[in-house]
Amino acid sequence: MIQVRGHRARDGKSDKEMIDVFTRCRPHEAFEYGRRRGIVPHYRVVQERPAAGEVVIDGRTLIMAGSGDYLALAADPRVKEAACRAIGTWGLSTGGARASSGSTVLHEELEARLAAFLGRPAAMVLASGYLANLTLAALVGRDDLVFADALIHASLVDALLVSQARLRRYRHNEIEHLESLLARADQDRGAQDRGALIVTEGMFSPTGGLCDLPGIAKAASRHGVRVVMDSAHDAGVMGAHGRGAAEHYGLESAVDVQTVPFSKSFGTIGGAVAGPEEVIVHLRHHARAMVFSAALPPASAAATLAALDIITDEPERRQRVLATATEIGDELTGMGFRILHSGTPIVAVHIGDTLPCYLFWNELFNQGVFTTAMIPPSVPEGQALIRLGLTAAHTDAQAERILSAFATAGRVMHLIP
Amino acid sequence: MIQVRGHRARDGKSDKEMIDVFTRCRPHEAFEYGRRRGIVPHYRVVQERPAAGEVVIDGRTLIMAGSGDYLALAADPRVKEAACRAIGTWGLSTGGARASSGSTVLHEELEARLAAFLGRPAAMVLASGYLANLTLAALVGRDDLVFADALIHASLVDALLVSQARLRRYRHNEIEHLESLLARADQDRGAQDRGALIVTEGMFSPTGGLCDLPGIAKAASRHGVRVVMDSAHDAGVMGAHGRGAAEHYGLESAVDVQTVPFSKSFGTIGGAVAGPEEVIVHLRHHARAMVFSAALPPASAAATLAALDIITDEPERRQRVLATATEIGDELTGMGFRILHSGTPIVAVHIGDTLPCYLFWNELFNQGVFTTAMIPPSVPEGQALIRLGLTAAHTDAQAERILSAFATAGRVMHLIP
Repeated sequence: MIQVRGHRARDGKSDKEMIDVFTRCRPHEAFEYGRRRGIVPHYRVVQERPAAGEVVIDGRTLIMAGSGDYLALAADPRVKEAACRAIGTWGLSTGGARASSGSTVLHEELEARLAAFLGRPAAMVLASGYLANLTLAALVGRDDLVFADALIHASLVDALLVSQARLRRYRHNEIEHLESLLARADQDRGAQDRGALIVTEGMFSPTGGLCDLPGIAKAASRHGVRVVMDSAHDAGVMGAHGRGAAEHYGLESAVDVQTVPFSKSFGTIGGAVAGPEEVIVHLRHHARAMVFSAALPPASAAATLAALDIITDEPERRQRVLATATEIGDELTGMGFRILHSGTPIVAVHIGDTLPCYLFWNELFNQGVFTTAMIPPSVPEGQALIRLGLTAAHTDAQAERILSAFATAGRVMHLIP
Repeated sequence: MIQVRGHRARDGKSDKEMIDVFTRCRPHEAFEYGRRRGIVPHYRVVQERPAAGEVVIDGRTLIMAGSGDYLALAADPRVKEAACRAIGTWGLSTGGARASSGSTVLHEELEARLAAFLGRPAAMVLASGYLANLTLAALVGRDDLVFADALIHASLVDALLVSQARLRRYRHNEIEHLESLLARADQDRGAQDRGALIVTEGMFSPTGGLCDLPGIAKAASRHGVRVVMDSAHDAGVMGAHGRGAAEHYGLESAVDVQTVPFSKSFGTIGGAVAGPEEVIVHLRHHARAMVFSAALPPASAAATLAALDIITDEPERRQRVLATATEIGDELTGMGFRILHSGTPIVAVHIGDTLPCYLFWNELFNQGVFTTAMIPPSVPEGQALIRLGLTAAHTDAQAERILSAFATAGRVMHLIP
């Protein structure tokens, strides 16, 4: 790291100056690593979306197999129509934060509908899912303990840093580790004056695996600690009604607060926090990310309401994406790839090191399939993977093309026999 | 604060349990205080927006004088049309983060246009202004020093907590205090190994006052420290071209990084960070709030592009809102009210304690004018105020009605003779 002092001691009055923070700015090491080899998996610019499951990048039409639009609602005519109607009536922005001038009947309706959908007493909506998670900072304070899975999303990491609570990370999905951290805290005299919280994802975005909710629920119950679950990737797709991982496990009451972003299964933008009435009131009044952020635009509220109708009325979308992902996962396993999990819309293919991951990503890209290269720090060192995000709109023909790209690229790269 | 241990020691295995964090959930004291008196200035639900500058709340049509839509672009037909066109072409969401599958040509175009508009080498856009500010966390780390105005926005407070840098707050706009903190840091031996940053708003939202940029620029230059400015409220309205407070002062090069949310003058949603190329690349690659948040939806990008055209082509909108606000401020001063600042779209009327502020807000509400009651902790204790946010669409007749409401309510409350 280059350290240069006093980038512009314009008048030379001081000879003791602090470091210019800009001198430490640098590209991401792995991004640069790929770029020097002509491999650029990140920030690729989509020029067009000619059809469902397709994108045009660099003038070539590719299958988009790295999407979070699991139920293919982002381009659903009903969702688009609802958004445009709301724009016609309300305009683009409310012109204020929810707390001041930005609350509308659409927000109230969406909050009531989401609470009912998720089977929780109350909900509040924000302009982004990242912000929804950030509000959780207001649940804990400096002396509290938060027990969090090692793979929680960046937005939850930020929330916990904002809260200044003491973070105890347990190894990904290792309930014994969680248990031992909880037990240690219980035995600590000081801990009896501390609030505590367990924080997990419902489905982990890098791997597509579900959290071990039965294990978490047992540990939480034994130690009397509340559980917060981010249902970013599981809401809409998992569970018979699409309420997420907790419904999937039949353990909804084991989760005390659930957050749901709209940018995945809902196909829109924004996010919600759902839970007990007093918790939601507390967050509405005290969470900086709620009180001081611009309201969810009316169009996003209306579009999310339309998406909610479809999620409720068309369970076949969930079934379709899960069937496609399971089939692709099974076929890839059959070819000799190592798939991390099954039964969710995410198929994560273990590669290992960053270079082969980049090379394989590039081979798939050349074969006409756009995937996500997950590299450290998004995944642990040596666990780089290629991640597929499937949608209900992927056709059987597209699934075939994805599989044939993997077969070809896998052989080229000697990843499979 | 009630402290109840072990909210659900379901199996009674432990007698040493941590505090149930939900037992500490409570409504905001001041909100409750108002509610018990039947005064509810916050989270009021807008039922309709029948015309520019008007809202329907509880079945009554009121003048909306608490808006951040300063240039009245949120309902501009060109902005609405651009959004709906983009929804037609792209759908609602991109289905991914910018870094994975969520970047489109619209994002690239908006980033290039914003950089050109702001006169900065590069820009990046995010789904919310709050998130744009949050990315600044990646500029500083644990041992760095951040010198921040006492009135910086909640999103910047959160960014600095996320960064874990050492926060040195200087009294609002008091450059001598900033100077003394910088001097102390310079004299500290350890500080020579630390990065440092000065963080300010361009225009402070609670008061409508501009930052003392000439003073900040001098202090920054003397101590060789970079300056970050959040132009949330000044971009679009201040400066001959609407580039914000720095343009207003003719000191654009004194600001190193500028953030701009779209939910105020642009009338849309989202936000941008603009600055040197290497800084923006660094943030694109390292800021969690950028790398791991859902992309700005195409409709918001297209609408913001349309707004940018209007901001550039129609300077009369800036002139109109500033003229309206200045006239209202002058008239209120003439009536005997104490106005904090002049020459910006925000007119902040000093009240003092929370109860009279609530009562006055309520009187104005009864007179048909919706304002914002700013109470602690948004403002310092004893400095509660009523805040007007004017827009270019407010008519002379509406301005008259606002003034007559203040005259009536002010006399009823014995705030003016």
